[in-house]
Amino acid sequence: MSTRKTSGKVYLVGAGPGAPDLLTIRATRLLARADVVFYDALVAASIIDLATRAEKIAVGKRCGRHSTAQRFINKRLVDAAQRHTVVVRLKGGDPMMFGRAQEEIDALQKAGIACEVVPGVTSALAASAELGISLTRRGISRAVTFVTPRSAPGKAGSNWVRSVCAADAAAVYMAGGEAASIASTLIANGLAPEVPVIVVEDATLPSMKKTSMTLAELQASSSSVTHGGPALILIGEVFGQDISTRTIKRSDEYSLPAPAASLCA
Amino acid sequence: MSTRKTSGKVYLVGAGPGAPDLLTIRATRLLARADVVFYDALVAASIIDLATRAEKIAVGKRCGRHSTAQRFINKRLVDAAQRHTVVVRLKGGDPMMFGRAQEEIDALQKAGIACEVVPGVTSALAASAELGISLTRRGISRAVTFVTPRSAPGKAGSNWVRSVCAADAAAVYMAGGEAASIASTLIANGLAPEVPVIVVEDATLPSMKKTSMTLAELQASSSSVTHGGPALILIGEVFGQDISTRTIKRSDEYSLPAPAASLCA
Repeated sequence: MSTRKTSGKVYLVGAGPGAPDLLTIRATRLLARADVVFYDALVAASIIDLATRAEKIAVGKRCGRHSTAQRFINKRLVDAAQRHTVVVRLKGGDPMMFGRAQEEIDALQKAGIACEVVPGVTSALAASAELGISLTRRGISRAVTFVTPRSAPGKAGSNWVRSVCAADAAAVYMAGGEAASIASTLIANGLAPEVPVIVVEDATLPSMKKTSMTLAELQASSSSVTHGGPALILIGEVFGQDISTRTIKRSDEYSLPAPAASLCA
Repeated sequence: MSTRKTSGKVYLVGAGPGAPDLLTIRATRLLARADVVFYDALVAASIIDLATRAEKIAVGKRCGRHSTAQRFINKRLVDAAQRHTVVVRLKGGDPMMFGRAQEEIDALQKAGIACEVVPGVTSALAASAELGISLTRRGISRAVTFVTPRSAPGKAGSNWVRSVCAADAAAVYMAGGEAASIASTLIANGLAPEVPVIVVEDATLPSMKKTSMTLAELQASSSSVTHGGPALILIGEVFGQDISTRTIKRSDEYSLPAPAASLCA
């Protein structure tokens, strides 16, 4: 009997903001080659389905719901790489933007497992595209900050408030469910109540919802400003446009994903 | 004789950070359908070649070189939409991140031309992926700012310095050629000279160059820290890792673009 040692590789892959055709070519090809895919709760089924030959394993972490502990996910990735050649860890948006990728990379490197990160379209840029409002309009915005108020339990407070106040434009990630409290915190720290805000939920999906208001109005809003989908709060002077006229209507020409066979060379 | 009125549409499309397989599926399909493509200087020839049936027009703007004035580009887009069905304006990275997209969107909307923005992978996220260093390591970084020191002539000074100082991590775009002066400005405004920096040039391309140092060392560096390619300066505690061991080696498995026919369903 020969002993066989598989030396697999783990790919941390950005699934993009939601719409399947906003995946990169590289991500699409890796999904088609994957032996096993570990995916987050927010990744669309139509994207996961592109991994036609893979075992598909949900390891979703969602705020307020039961989740697979990060340490256990790390262990499963290491174990999978010891049994498979192509292991894909599929994360919503871009893996390096609030995706806890570093913990997985560190665990893989410690275990001597090769890994690689495939970047994706992050949701703030997708929301900006859908709105037709640049985050960096010349003359108004030369500094845009991406923050989250969420931090690890027991970790020091973050600079998210200071960073939003200092930037020309800001995108607050993972903001659903606590939008009013985020607005309160920012106003209490000196951000002008009249600064324009757009809340975008489910960016790029057919269920996308966009709501335009001021920071003061967001503070006064009920929790119903979002409906449980992933939500971004966009804040800054650049967002003070009438989105009912500014919004760039997307055509219906983008089908959900073409069959994997035709996408994946 | 019948009069014929063409009602074309302009797509502002992100070409991604450089590697052709980091284009989105949506971008690839639009390139295949394009009648005319207006492209920036920094977009790789292999990406432009995906527009197999299009007339291809360079409208490159590069720092320090002669460029097509923005107002003239706006006019050409409007004119093209009056003659063609699918007009693609191809921009490096993501259109809404320092891409002057807003000026083009405004001109098109004013002229009554339909337009749509296709987001792309922005270079800071691609650089982060290549380095294997998350911009948002939990416990260290919950606020990452993307800035540029470049502003329109005659426009008020921007908040880029304040924003970098307030964030946990920062990516300075369009930083090539003036990296030392950027470091000086940040140190003069209170950023710690020992803060780690990584300069990334030509992210995701075979010519990619990564240099790790402190902000003080960047201040003391000659202009040779970059070689004229598009350069990013990444600044923050998260970048204080030894990139000689941390760097995630990419395999050679990613070919340059597959023929458009097989990519574009």
